[in-house]
Amino acid sequence: MRKGEATRERIIAAAAPIFNQHGYNGTSMQQLMEATGLEKGGIYRHFGSKEELAAEAFRFSLDQVRKIRFDELSNVTGALPKLRYMIERFVEAPSPIAGGCPLMNTAIDSDDGNPALRDLAAQALRRWRNGLARIATEGLEAGELSPGVDPRRIANVIISTLEGALMLSRIEASRTPLADARATLEAWLDSLAAVENVSSPKRPNPLKTQRK
Amino acid sequence: MRKGEATRERIIAAAAPIFNQHGYNGTSMQQLMEATGLEKGGIYRHFGSKEELAAEAFRFSLDQVRKIRFDELSNVTGALPKLRYMIERFVEAPSPIAGGCPLMNTAIDSDDGNPALRDLAAQALRRWRNGLARIATEGLEAGELSPGVDPRRIANVIISTLEGALMLSRIEASRTPLADARATLEAWLDSLAAVENVSSPKRPNPLKTQRK
Repeated sequence: MRKGEATRERIIAAAAPIFNQHGYNGTSMQQLMEATGLEKGGIYRHFGSKEELAAEAFRFSLDQVRKIRFDELSNVTGALPKLRYMIERFVEAPSPIAGGCPLMNTAIDSDDGNPALRDLAAQALRRWRNGLARIATEGLEAGELSPGVDPRRIANVIISTLEGALMLSRIEASRTPLADARATLEAWLDSLAAVENVSSPKRPNPLKTQRK
Repeated sequence: MRKGEATRERIIAAAAPIFNQHGYNGTSMQQLMEATGLEKGGIYRHFGSKEELAAEAFRFSLDQVRKIRFDELSNVTGALPKLRYMIERFVEAPSPIAGGCPLMNTAIDSDDGNPALRDLAAQALRRWRNGLARIATEGLEAGELSPGVDPRRIANVIISTLEGALMLSRIEASRTPLADARATLEAWLDSLAAVENVSSPKRPNPLKTQRK
């Protein structure tokens, strides 16, 4: 890696948690200078604009999150175990970039503003949903899921419930909403299993578990 | 209402959509001056700080949202119809304040920053959850819900799924994630009904509906 490239990557890694915590407008040049240890000119030698740096920081944050959550997915066999694995990892492996889920932060931050960031967030969402829907489709084709379930709906509901629960958990500094989301999604996935599917062991319905 | 008080309320109403769209740090004095038609001094004659104005704007936005969504709730009878009504209203009645759900926006905006706003968001979340959990508890006591379901979990999952779906719908400019969330939550509520409960008509499982 050339020195300029290494500096560029270092700036992106340092800027990522700043943008993820404070949003695009909420991130000041002063904060970026402190985080990178560079002057304004030193930063803008590598990036055409604040928007370009924010976009690279978002891509970097997402990559880190995907790495920590989904790197082992290919070792999991079967559609339902794969979906359960993705839910478990979302709940158990917090974002390695300070500030929570970069997708949610960027989505909320950009939905009334920055169109370039909004497009990146929409693209990341599509990629995640397509991945989940593809797994569900494979489960349908393999007879693992009940005929007629809708892969797109499964994907949308998993993402919505997890992201919403993360928002609740962060604002309350409590893991309960994430645990509630996980238990409910797991019971729900069980209910979508094809009746003849024996690979999915029957679990107690966690909705009927008394709170601890 | 005294003139000062009327001006104060007018400032809050004008500032509410600005804060809701752009967040606390993302809202500039310039934007507030343009929205209110007042100079900086004219605004700060009524509010001790930007934080105080933001807090009042958040309270105002929440009140407007509650009014449009839940004003008719007391006319609905039964726990399951009440929960379904609240889900339907969330999905069908968009926030009257530009920028989407003030709770989600303020939660995401303040979770790494402003503690006063974070407390207000946490308080609004508790109030919403307690309302939902109280309805579920009444449903349990009335034998409408299956014994052993957990009211707190029901409340957390409804809020998480709706808020997450709203985030997806906004970033994609599509109502599909909200429609998917509603259909899934309704089917899920049906599955929580006590078996002997005849007030809940059996519906086709919307998870098994082919996409249109």
